[in-house]
Amino acid sequence: MDAAETALNVFDNYIKHIAIDCVIFGFHNNELKVLLVKIKNLDGCWMLPGGFIQRAEGVDEALDRMLKDRTGLTNIHLEQFGIFGDVNRVSRNFILNLIPSEHHDDSRLNWLAGRVISIGYYALVEYSKVKPKVYEFYDEAFEWFNINELPTLSLDHKDIIQKGLETLRMMLDYKLVGFDLLPETFTMQELQKLYETILGKELRRDSFQRKMLDMNILERLEKKYTGAANKAPYLYRFKDKS
Amino acid sequence: MDAAETALNVFDNYIKHIAIDCVIFGFHNNELKVLLVKIKNLDGCWMLPGGFIQRAEGVDEALDRMLKDRTGLTNIHLEQFGIFGDVNRVSRNFILNLIPSEHHDDSRLNWLAGRVISIGYYALVEYSKVKPKVYEFYDEAFEWFNINELPTLSLDHKDIIQKGLETLRMMLDYKLVGFDLLPETFTMQELQKLYETILGKELRRDSFQRKMLDMNILERLEKKYTGAANKAPYLYRFKDKS
Repeated sequence: MDAAETALNVFDNYIKHIAIDCVIFGFHNNELKVLLVKIKNLDGCWMLPGGFIQRAEGVDEALDRMLKDRTGLTNIHLEQFGIFGDVNRVSRNFILNLIPSEHHDDSRLNWLAGRVISIGYYALVEYSKVKPKVYEFYDEAFEWFNINELPTLSLDHKDIIQKGLETLRMMLDYKLVGFDLLPETFTMQELQKLYETILGKELRRDSFQRKMLDMNILERLEKKYTGAANKAPYLYRFKDKS
Repeated sequence: MDAAETALNVFDNYIKHIAIDCVIFGFHNNELKVLLVKIKNLDGCWMLPGGFIQRAEGVDEALDRMLKDRTGLTNIHLEQFGIFGDVNRVSRNFILNLIPSEHHDDSRLNWLAGRVISIGYYALVEYSKVKPKVYEFYDEAFEWFNINELPTLSLDHKDIIQKGLETLRMMLDYKLVGFDLLPETFTMQELQKLYETILGKELRRDSFQRKMLDMNILERLEKKYTGAANKAPYLYRFKDKS
């Protein structure tokens, strides 16, 4: 049985017509990054990591499995943010490119070329901890991209990233979402830089600091030692995380 | 062809394994209401209105169709808020109860008893405008229920309502969602009552008024004539709606 045949048989273990796409955000060198994957058979095109749900697993279990397979990370919190269900979002040609031509008439493919509705999730992960794995059935390469310098993306994945980013920005306003993007302790300036990078704009230092302190989610620790004691900034950590 | 046979054939026009459930909120007599439907074959159990997506329609079109069929309303804004995908959320018995016994071995039913993942949406509608229709293939009755006095619900629909309500409450904090729940013009007191009803708790009058005015979304109109001019409250309307 060749790889394509194996893949086709494996499809039988999955629920048809529903896919999951994950927008995995990381923060590194003051850049907001997105984890993308390139599939060998789709020349030059990058996609969001994701996949199908197995018949025997709940959606939450499927998410855990995908994140572990694709990033090596466990216990990642994912937020569901949208449904992508346009009639023509997955073309038959796209599917055929994934599968060797001798399998193009295989009846096991019909549903794929028919309709696939995708559920969008985003996750915030610690950039340095991601060790992308190679997925079993495909020849795939993973890479982080700056959110402002994305490559050409397959299907509607550019729209999915955009909607994920909009949701993340909206969430910043009422709930702290930076838990996994910063180290255990950080300065107010580092926190502000994270917010500015996600929002894509500069913020006023005074009002940012006031807003963060008003949210009552930060615990102030000792000053960060920088050699100049009177100018040393305080270190903070998230109360929920301590 | 009997009704069940017709229904079974109609299933072929729908995408398998994915359903939509709508939590339709209305506001009436200072009560938050939810629109539920009772299906004849499911004795005593109520469900959320929803349904399956047709192969030839996008998810957004499916939502428009369902809302129009079930409530008679058009141009309703729906917010997607969750995915309900536990392995055992739809039991085979539940499906069999819906279909006459002579059709229980029909292969067209297998996927239904297998796995159905539901996408949760909520809508806020003007209570007085809802004219629930009877759905073509089933004997169904629609009814509004007070959110605090829900009947026994099928499947995981109680959880879906709860999650929809939590999302609605969360949204109140950063975005005005009451557009369709109030008449064109209203007093600050009426707006506060709406918020209190959705949140399930009383709010302080001064801070509520300040918060609403700070949001800069209300247009103040003339005073409401009540006979006692000096105590007449101002009327407001939403800026976006004018």
